[in-house]
Amino acid sequence: MSIRRYRDGDWPAVWTLLRPAIGAGETYAFAPESTEAEIQAAWIDAPSATYVACAADGSVVGTYFIKPNQPGLGAHVCNCGYVVDERAQGHGVATAMCGHSQAEAVAMGFRAMQFNFVVATNERAIRLWRKLGFSVVGRLPGAFQHRRLGFVDALIMFKELVA
Amino acid sequence: MSIRRYRDGDWPAVWTLLRPAIGAGETYAFAPESTEAEIQAAWIDAPSATYVACAADGSVVGTYFIKPNQPGLGAHVCNCGYVVDERAQGHGVATAMCGHSQAEAVAMGFRAMQFNFVVATNERAIRLWRKLGFSVVGRLPGAFQHRRLGFVDALIMFKELVA
Repeated sequence: MSIRRYRDGDWPAVWTLLRPAIGAGETYAFAPESTEAEIQAAWIDAPSATYVACAADGSVVGTYFIKPNQPGLGAHVCNCGYVVDERAQGHGVATAMCGHSQAEAVAMGFRAMQFNFVVATNERAIRLWRKLGFSVVGRLPGAFQHRRLGFVDALIMFKELVA
Repeated sequence: MSIRRYRDGDWPAVWTLLRPAIGAGETYAFAPESTEAEIQAAWIDAPSATYVACAADGSVVGTYFIKPNQPGLGAHVCNCGYVVDERAQGHGVATAMCGHSQAEAVAMGFRAMQFNFVVATNERAIRLWRKLGFSVVGRLPGAFQHRRLGFVDALIMFKELVA
């Protein structure tokens, strides 16, 4: 597997990944009924940079973005979002992308990374982020409207990248 | 004092309030050197609604915005930002605006209100938000670059508006 910067021609493959992940309504804040243009704006246009993880055959198995989490005086903390192809789960794609994103973040001058909205029922993700050095620094009561479970908590997770 | 929706003609008075508050670099994330256009986009264009608090003579002594804090499945939680004219501090303007914003939030269908970035050294604000029913639900280490104090923590505060 290799991770590289997103290129325009990647969009169809990236959308193929994002669409079911967002449509499930269980882990991402984006409205499940979001249009392709809305998601492209949020995943590609708004962030500082977007990346794709590719299998040996070149197919896209994951994607992530990186951006400042706040303007100006909070812009030294970045935010990332990651999606892995459902069929590629359990092969270390998220781990590889998160490690890659931390290195990219430091190279871009960020000092820390913050996840604003980790759905509390997404235990696999929480376990992984903890393993990769993130701490839960906040809990937002009922902040996520889970498609099946209704209002559930969301966690804020944080990792300092520079001592 | 009265609080009403922002109108286009209010901008010069609103900018007169915002400019020194942002320029101080002690309580708001916006870069102190932000341009007028950047702040107008963030304070007026991006939010769902913006309000002004006016003294008896009609002069603008405070302003706040309201917007969803997340898209789609997190859009039932709103975010607000408040600025009070330095010369009007201590007269209950922030209290009045926060109360007004909570009523507006409920009327708009929001279920809770979240402050993402309360600078930990801004003790007066923290005391006020606590008094008005907000709880500290998270702490972001070193997330705010204070102009005088360097990297200081930022707090996440939250209030449920609907049981």
